[in-house]
Amino acid sequence: MQAKAYAAQAADTPLAPWNFERRDVGPQDVLIEIAYCGVCHTDVHQARNEWFPGIFPMVPGHEIVGKIVQVGVDAKKHKPGDLAGVGVMVDSCRTCEDCRNGQEQFCSVSPVVTYNTRDKNGQPVYGGYSNYIVVHEDFALRVSEKLDLAGVAPLLCAGITTYSPLRRRNVGKGHKLAVVGLGGLGHMAVKFGAAFGADVTVLSTSPNKAEAARRLGANRLVVTKDEEQMKAAQRSFDFIIDTVAADHDINPYLATLRTNGVYVNVGMPVQPFQVPSFTLAMGNKVVAGSGAGGLPETQEMLDFCAEKNIVADVELVNMKDINAAFERMLRGDVLYRFVIDMKTL
Amino acid sequence: MQAKAYAAQAADTPLAPWNFERRDVGPQDVLIEIAYCGVCHTDVHQARNEWFPGIFPMVPGHEIVGKIVQVGVDAKKHKPGDLAGVGVMVDSCRTCEDCRNGQEQFCSVSPVVTYNTRDKNGQPVYGGYSNYIVVHEDFALRVSEKLDLAGVAPLLCAGITTYSPLRRRNVGKGHKLAVVGLGGLGHMAVKFGAAFGADVTVLSTSPNKAEAARRLGANRLVVTKDEEQMKAAQRSFDFIIDTVAADHDINPYLATLRTNGVYVNVGMPVQPFQVPSFTLAMGNKVVAGSGAGGLPETQEMLDFCAEKNIVADVELVNMKDINAAFERMLRGDVLYRFVIDMKTL
Repeated sequence: MQAKAYAAQAADTPLAPWNFERRDVGPQDVLIEIAYCGVCHTDVHQARNEWFPGIFPMVPGHEIVGKIVQVGVDAKKHKPGDLAGVGVMVDSCRTCEDCRNGQEQFCSVSPVVTYNTRDKNGQPVYGGYSNYIVVHEDFALRVSEKLDLAGVAPLLCAGITTYSPLRRRNVGKGHKLAVVGLGGLGHMAVKFGAAFGADVTVLSTSPNKAEAARRLGANRLVVTKDEEQMKAAQRSFDFIIDTVAADHDINPYLATLRTNGVYVNVGMPVQPFQVPSFTLAMGNKVVAGSGAGGLPETQEMLDFCAEKNIVADVELVNMKDINAAFERMLRGDVLYRFVIDMKTL
Repeated sequence: MQAKAYAAQAADTPLAPWNFERRDVGPQDVLIEIAYCGVCHTDVHQARNEWFPGIFPMVPGHEIVGKIVQVGVDAKKHKPGDLAGVGVMVDSCRTCEDCRNGQEQFCSVSPVVTYNTRDKNGQPVYGGYSNYIVVHEDFALRVSEKLDLAGVAPLLCAGITTYSPLRRRNVGKGHKLAVVGLGGLGHMAVKFGAAFGADVTVLSTSPNKAEAARRLGANRLVVTKDEEQMKAAQRSFDFIIDTVAADHDINPYLATLRTNGVYVNVGMPVQPFQVPSFTLAMGNKVVAGSGAGGLPETQEMLDFCAEKNIVADVELVNMKDINAAFERMLRGDVLYRFVIDMKTL
């Protein structure tokens, strides 16, 4: 079927309108009419070859929500009219150990991320900056009618990426949680941390974000450029979730961990972390990564958000303004996630 | 009181006989006549200023066992004739959060390691390459009469350093544990891993250590220089404990972790680890450090060893041969820990 999108034709060209063919709706597929798609930092990394050489034309977008408009003859999980979301994955083998454990994002056999890769037939897959998408029904998550749909879109990546590492470690009441950075991921980490009952501190270079941090659920903001404040924060946190995508030294954050404290990076900066063995040994410290979440946990997160009325704080943009939105996002000039209103495509 | 020792007079001189004054036995102190002292890689790092400028003359040694020969008037925990062990710590504040949690090794107020630092009065402290030591009774651990005493000495550092990170994470039945390096720490990690019920693999550059690894309790050895073997080991381990003190790239080991796998470093190489964020994110991987253990856990480890009849495999050396032993240890030419027989001092 014919679909419309905004695509990058090369790593050094802006996104522009592009018409292309989506695959037909197979027996177990669903066709989703996309209502909104969040704009993730990953979209810029990928469209500009910052991680690895991409497949062009490239249609970014992996924070997708919309309405099911067609289901395959053997698809049982959704019916036309249902709301659905698609995150960072659109297929996996479903039989390897990770898939069996509900960690499809780490499938070791045939993982298919939502764009900038090829499917099992070797065909490029295209993301959510588009009016339609076809996915296997398993990779379409149920979305509650109760929530603001535009605010749900970022839950599919920014949401699950922050929910998963906090939930996996049972972060909650009695824990001091620090959130580094207050962008798309950071503001969700604050919301989840607060919803789980943790005492949340935002670590930020910007003192003027203090009020916003409190409004999102944090109890305080520590200005990371302020030596006194950072010194006072030493050995104080049980968990840190670092959402900053730009390269930075993580050692000042590790110094704010208590004994047995855990630092989790979800910002995915390009340069490797440099961590002295002593820094880790003194206090039994942990540096961890976390990659999105599997299907069961993503559904759990969406259900939790519906129950607790949690959505992302978003700024709607028109499709034609996507390149300007990329630039504003890179400057941190967004509260807190751009979401493309697909009616404007 | 007068004591004898072997000391380094400077970072570039070998260890040699030295007579010095130990502090008097205070009301809560005990005097230990040292029977054996293990030779830890740390002793070389410290005596040669490889980590930081040391305090000279320096008497190394923090794997100390011996007999209590005098107790202070208010000391209640030991009586003359008891066996006792002293590990990497000889004092701490006993009131900070870490001390209250039995993590005295991370005391944030006044930690005193066993040598190459100063005590609360500003006096240098001297380690176990000596005939006597005076310590606060809390820092003298109970040692069972049932075990071979020379083999107990290395438990005080190599033992607790490997026991603690495995125990803290409940490594045991159903877990695949990899031990990197088969030296003083590595061979204890294998013994503990096997005693806890884990399926233990040794990762080593030396194929000829396979039989020794099996004898210690491992089920197999993977030769890390063999690409095929390392490839076959990918995504296979739940835990890795890396005991290698020399600088090395840890990323090949991280590739052998399963999803949610944990890499713990206890070898403490000098150069910082370099870890890409992607390596951690793909599989929710963890890089952790671990520093010795607190008093309660060290006692627990000693009691566990008494119950399970676990000691280190040691090669006794005469005090006068310590410098040669350092060189042999650096070449990995020891099965598996040198222990100084203090009768030879």
